[in-house]
Amino acid sequence: MQHAVFEDVRIEGHLIDSGIMSRVMDAIIAGGGEFETLSFDVGRTNDDASVCALRVKAADQPGLDAILTQIQEYGAVSTDPADATLAQARLAGVFPDTFYSTTNMETDVRIAGNWVRVTNPEMDLGVRIDEATGTAEAVPMADVHVGDTYVIGHAGIRVHPQERPRDKQAFEFMSSAVSSEKPKAQVVADVARMLRDTRAAGRDVIAVVGPAVVHTGAADELARLVEMGYISVLFGGNAVATHDIESALFGTSLGVALSTGIPTVGGHDHHLRAINVVRACGSIAEAVEQGVITKGLMYTLVKTGTPFVLAGSIRDDGPLPDVITDVIEAQAAMRTYAQSAGACLMLSTMLHSIATGNMLPASTTTVCVDINPAVVTKLADRGSWQTVGIVTDVGLFLEQLANELDK
Amino acid sequence: MQHAVFEDVRIEGHLIDSGIMSRVMDAIIAGGGEFETLSFDVGRTNDDASVCALRVKAADQPGLDAILTQIQEYGAVSTDPADATLAQARLAGVFPDTFYSTTNMETDVRIAGNWVRVTNPEMDLGVRIDEATGTAEAVPMADVHVGDTYVIGHAGIRVHPQERPRDKQAFEFMSSAVSSEKPKAQVVADVARMLRDTRAAGRDVIAVVGPAVVHTGAADELARLVEMGYISVLFGGNAVATHDIESALFGTSLGVALSTGIPTVGGHDHHLRAINVVRACGSIAEAVEQGVITKGLMYTLVKTGTPFVLAGSIRDDGPLPDVITDVIEAQAAMRTYAQSAGACLMLSTMLHSIATGNMLPASTTTVCVDINPAVVTKLADRGSWQTVGIVTDVGLFLEQLANELDK
Amino acid sequence: MQHAVFEDVRIEGHLIDSGIMSRVMDAIIAGGGEFETLSFDVGRTNDDASVCALRVKAADQPGLDAILTQIQEYGAVSTDPADATLAQARLAGVFPDTFYSTTNMETDVRIAGNWVRVTNPEMDLGVRIDEATGTAEAVPMADVHVGDTYVIGHAGIRVHPQERPRDKQAFEFMSSAVSSEKPKAQVVADVARMLRDTRAAGRDVIAVVGPAVVHTGAADELARLVEMGYISVLFGGNAVATHDIESALFGTSLGVALSTGIPTVGGHDHHLRAINVVRACGSIAEAVEQGVITKGLMYTLVKTGTPFVLAGSIRDDGPLPDVITDVIEAQAAMRTYAQSAGACLMLSTMLHSIATGNMLPASTTTVCVDINPAVVTKLADRGSWQTVGIVTDVGLFLEQLANELDK
Amino acid sequence: MQHAVFEDVRIEGHLIDSGIMSRVMDAIIAGGGEFETLSFDVGRTNDDASVCALRVKAADQPGLDAILTQIQEYGAVSTDPADATLAQARLAGVFPDTFYSTTNMETDVRIAGNWVRVTNPEMDLGVRIDEATGTAEAVPMADVHVGDTYVIGHAGIRVHPQERPRDKQAFEFMSSAVSSEKPKAQVVADVARMLRDTRAAGRDVIAVVGPAVVHTGAADELARLVEMGYISVLFGGNAVATHDIESALFGTSLGVALSTGIPTVGGHDHHLRAINVVRACGSIAEAVEQGVITKGLMYTLVKTGTPFVLAGSIRDDGPLPDVITDVIEAQAAMRTYAQSAGACLMLSTMLHSIATGNMLPASTTTVCVDINPAVVTKLADRGSWQTVGIVTDVGLFLEQLANELDK
Repeated sequence: MQHAVFEDVRIEGHLIDSGIMSRVMDAIIAGGGEFETLSFDVGRTNDDASVCALRVKAADQPGLDAILTQIQEYGAVSTDPADATLAQARLAGVFPDTFYSTTNMETDVRIAGNWVRVTNPEMDLGVRIDEATGTAEAVPMADVHVGDTYVIGHAGIRVHPQERPRDKQAFEFMSSAVSSEKPKAQVVADVARMLRDTRAAGRDVIAVVGPAVVHTGAADELARLVEMGYISVLFGGNAVATHDIESALFGTSLGVALSTGIPTVGGHDHHLRAINVVRACGSIAEAVEQGVITKGLMYTLVKTGTPFVLAGSIRDDGPLPDVITDVIEAQAAMRTYAQSAGACLMLSTMLHSIATGNMLPASTTTVCVDINPAVVTKLADRGSWQTVGIVTDVGLFLEQLANELDK
Repeated sequence: MQHAVFEDVRIEGHLIDSGIMSRVMDAIIAGGGEFETLSFDVGRTNDDASVCALRVKAADQPGLDAILTQIQEYGAVSTDPADATLAQARLAGVFPDTFYSTTNMETDVRIAGNWVRVTNPEMDLGVRIDEATGTAEAVPMADVHVGDTYVIGHAGIRVHPQERPRDKQAFEFMSSAVSSEKPKAQVVADVARMLRDTRAAGRDVIAVVGPAVVHTGAADELARLVEMGYISVLFGGNAVATHDIESALFGTSLGVALSTGIPTVGGHDHHLRAINVVRACGSIAEAVEQGVITKGLMYTLVKTGTPFVLAGSIRDDGPLPDVITDVIEAQAAMRTYAQSAGACLMLSTMLHSIATGNMLPASTTTVCVDINPAVVTKLADRGSWQTVGIVTDVGLFLEQLANELDK
Repeated sequence: MQHAVFEDVRIEGHLIDSGIMSRVMDAIIAGGGEFETLSFDVGRTNDDASVCALRVKAADQPGLDAILTQIQEYGAVSTDPADATLAQARLAGVFPDTFYSTTNMETDVRIAGNWVRVTNPEMDLGVRIDEATGTAEAVPMADVHVGDTYVIGHAGIRVHPQERPRDKQAFEFMSSAVSSEKPKAQVVADVARMLRDTRAAGRDVIAVVGPAVVHTGAADELARLVEMGYISVLFGGNAVATHDIESALFGTSLGVALSTGIPTVGGHDHHLRAINVVRACGSIAEAVEQGVITKGLMYTLVKTGTPFVLAGSIRDDGPLPDVITDVIEAQAAMRTYAQSAGACLMLSTMLHSIATGNMLPASTTTVCVDINPAVVTKLADRGSWQTVGIVTDVGLFLEQLANELDK
Repeated sequence: MQHAVFEDVRIEGHLIDSGIMSRVMDAIIAGGGEFETLSFDVGRTNDDASVCALRVKAADQPGLDAILTQIQEYGAVSTDPADATLAQARLAGVFPDTFYSTTNMETDVRIAGNWVRVTNPEMDLGVRIDEATGTAEAVPMADVHVGDTYVIGHAGIRVHPQERPRDKQAFEFMSSAVSSEKPKAQVVADVARMLRDTRAAGRDVIAVVGPAVVHTGAADELARLVEMGYISVLFGGNAVATHDIESALFGTSLGVALSTGIPTVGGHDHHLRAINVVRACGSIAEAVEQGVITKGLMYTLVKTGTPFVLAGSIRDDGPLPDVITDVIEAQAAMRTYAQSAGACLMLSTMLHSIATGNMLPASTTTVCVDINPAVVTKLADRGSWQTVGIVTDVGLFLEQLANELDK
């Protein structure tokens, strides 16, 4: 027989309308396997969950393992689960061979017969087990210490895939990217409501911000959101902070006058002078303190005590003293906020948005705004129902959003 | 000697800062020729024109002719001009061989020693001479009659290149495309002022409109511009009119509810039903008359007596009875308005905008708005200082423009 | 009770892995309805079909009708089907009210208790019934005659949704768009194999071609495909034919020398001269006959007796005498070939590709090639598993495809 | 009088056809000034330079200074030059106030009456003067030491703008971006010739490489260029190296099989496993040494002793041990090669290309290849005639380039 090995798995949830069952079947076929439906109890109404028992067959064990690893992400669990297999790290910064690589979904690991929730779910980490306390935690490769215990293989892992919200309203808002050809008024209202709900629930909102927000003159609108308390932390780079400070000091962004949109003669070094001034002060907060910076987005962040993380890039001039030039340190600073955030706005920056997206749990509501449909598609494609992409002019969008929230 | 033939030409104007002189020199070198500066009187101040006499040399006569034809477009005129050479059309719809092909700039033709202005300057036409009246007119190929007299070759032609406006304000506004990363408030104000000035001068404004204007919910804003008298004629296709009427009848555009941005179940044939309804009425005006269409952009055009030209495309469903399905007839209908218009707004439609742009004199102020920078670049690249491209969300832009003009 | 009306429907097929069931459920919920699963027999293996009986509930009859109309497209059929309701057309070119609007999928209509196949399935047409012969045919709105009988409403209609191919190889090839970041060698081989298979099966191949194919120098490669017999008919516009003939006469395309990629001085009117020359000859075939055109794509089409349809657009200069300037006539000419074609290549033209795509049955294998991902996404989004989009340089792609087929 | 202050400047070169004069006049007008042409000796032929003496007038000294700073970049020098003004840095990493900010063009600074060439011309640096040796050097802000002497203001600075090459062939190749609609064969040949010439002249070639080069299967073609000696150093990030090593270890890039273009089931963590393996080895070179990596681009670099700089980004997983995670250190590593390179190929990476472009002298021949026209436009817009952008599929392009160089 061609398919000599098999394993029986069980999947539960809104399997059909969430598309989970379809993806499971695809993965089995694409992996060269076959399936046999042992049982399939289909939910009678829209509110009932379905339960499916499948026999997954493959030609050999490695093929079966690849399939099982893949469908595990969709929630498939062995009908006869074993404990997770563990191994020790023997080199700092290096996972044990065949380490289990995490998804960004809620994940349990089976230790001594118990299913334990993995804290800090994030894409592409390892799962460190503290055998003393029986706890499990997702850990980046760079943080591996010699002697740490990690899960290897795919046994004893249970993933809870993010289901599409059953609530009609949320479902419609979140179902897909909003193209440039859709009416925007309702979308603005939906995002405003989501931000209100998130803050009302006491959850944080991350704003990931690119320099286009300043170039388009929308930094003031974003500052209004900060003042109104809708932004809990800002992630960005040297550019957005520099051009905001440039605008505070010179009225220009990359040398272009924000009042007229016209390049200022001799203005292309304004950004460099702005950086130099802040370096002389010691930090952005010091520059605000000393009365050097008296307005703008960064000013508002400092004055409202709203934290920000500025991560370095090889494109940076200067950079500003607040920029974390080591990218692994910058990731660690961002990670502090990423796990606990309830929502994330990604505003016209691909680099920082991808980095942030990598760190967010699948359950974080994420809104990506960019005028470039390719960027929106890329950012919104996180395999999560909680992400919506909006193709529009970020300047005009933030103005309308601030007006909506200010009503 | 390598460059055996030559001709002396004269060019006058703001040769240096308009970039004209630079393009003339480029063309000569690119054409394999050489030039000798016979004299160059440079304007002393910014307001003074310069005058240059050049000897253009080439290896042979065809090479020289190619260069002269090219630099003629930049205003170069032989220092010893001859009358234009004429020939008769011998076939209907066919120009004589070596016919002179027009630019979209003001052009004179020398007949019997006199420079005569060519009426209806438009790209890629022929110049028909009425020898009885001594007049000259630009004519499309399809309109050639047997026995018509046309200019052939490049002798006796004088082109007046569009110079960059000397006025600082206009110059800055018009200098180039407005990228998505520029602040938009000033741009909106500039476009509003331009529209006010154009109407105050009694000139017409063409709006070339694509279906995205309806899809984004901006048709109402455009209707406000029509009501305020800022739009003199609308150019579009079956799609924009259909989706506007669909929105009046069903509240959807391509089946998407304009109030919510959400696809209506079973709504994807709304546009077809809208077309069917209007066909039953006989025309859009009849449908308005009969109370079938009671709101929207097309309704407003009919009610205000604002003319519109709907040109057919092979993508069309139906089409609406008002659509001119023969494209040459549609061009003729558009041409009626194109020559006399003072300004043109191109709103999210590449097909109709290119067609319109082909018909506009270089002196028509043209504003192209699209969210796709590639479309804006293509449309704005008309070799005319009178064209500006704006990369933004057309829905949000029209809303702000209507608000600005409604102040 | 909130959901006062209901209808029971039956759906059969690979409901889960084709995503059909998921779309049915979505449509019911989005339409404000509810469903109850009466029975669901899930196929035991990958090869077995599933059968589902659903009770669809809605608040009122119009809501129920909208839902039923929508899920009908996914194959849902009433468990107690009635005959189709018929009505007569009372105006030429106008369907009866509430006419049934077609999809591009295989469709049956129930007449006198029998399910009859609708010929010429194409999007957005009406279904004309010949009661004498008991046959049904899809008909464009413009072709409606007074007294014709049409299906109205949604009763008595059965749609056969296109299922995703079960064959692993085809499935992988066809599953989705090929981004610019994928390796292309395998894709080229897959397209080549598909073309060979289509021709071997005696089916026709339509090439829809934009002027970029000429501009990129790829017209020769396409001509090779014509010579090898892989292209049965070419769809295009005035531009592609004009620039191909321009290249044959002047060695340029839009004035750019194809040998060097450099604009030819004085060459921007070459296309107009090319049109004029062909108009003087009377037709492209005449120009080939008279030895005026001696090479190129159009030459090869004429010489090999391969038909072509050139459809007019309001952007057209001239146009060439072969261009069908009435768009409804042009559609009719294209429709002749569209229904019977086995495959369609869409090469760098959005206008003609959309028009063609509207006419193709869902079962026609379609390959869209464009360097612009937005165009590919738009064209490939036909709700059909038989369509693949490839983001690449059309010039380099056609060269490799011709080489692959020439092996 | 409105324009109360003035300064007389002199400009020399191919002022008209290089567009320099036009830009000078624009800057004066845009800066609110006026000019008076004191004299203008126009070169008689294409080979002769022109000399212009201008009186630049402004309303006040700051306005005049802004204009002079701007036109200095186009080569304007005071007719009565003073020595450069100097000031000492009082804080580490901070330039003195009003420091002169460099362009990427050859620049002289006047010290004690002598014009001294500034070494390492690069955009946005300061000019450090060693008064003992009378030398001048461009220095990044981060490298400022307390007590260093820097040029402040704009006096005593002479910039040599990059003129457009007079050579017809080079001029045509370099004149502008190559759109996706141009024939590519000649472009490939031109780039090949340029690479041959650069290497024959003993100059280095930098390849800046993004992961798309691996994803498209073109890493092997680039490795061929390395083997043939056309690449002197590779700049990239964690992604390109990781995916190349992933392809060597697993045959996939981002989990997509390079042989088929199809995602491998369970393959999305391959890149993480590849990083883990190399971290265990200690470095890429060690992994090659130990026989872990046996093929691919990174392998070829190691085996041929070709250096590479991998710069970190906050998107990075892992990262590979060779990645320089501090971005300022990474810039310093790249800077080592940037100043001396004769040519630079930018291949499908915006982040690293912008960073590299910032460091290159204006005279470095630069070729940017990307399928996205917006990226090409952004990268090619360096105000340098030595840069050409090519819109095409990087995979197919590199294959043709390697074939052309392998002839």
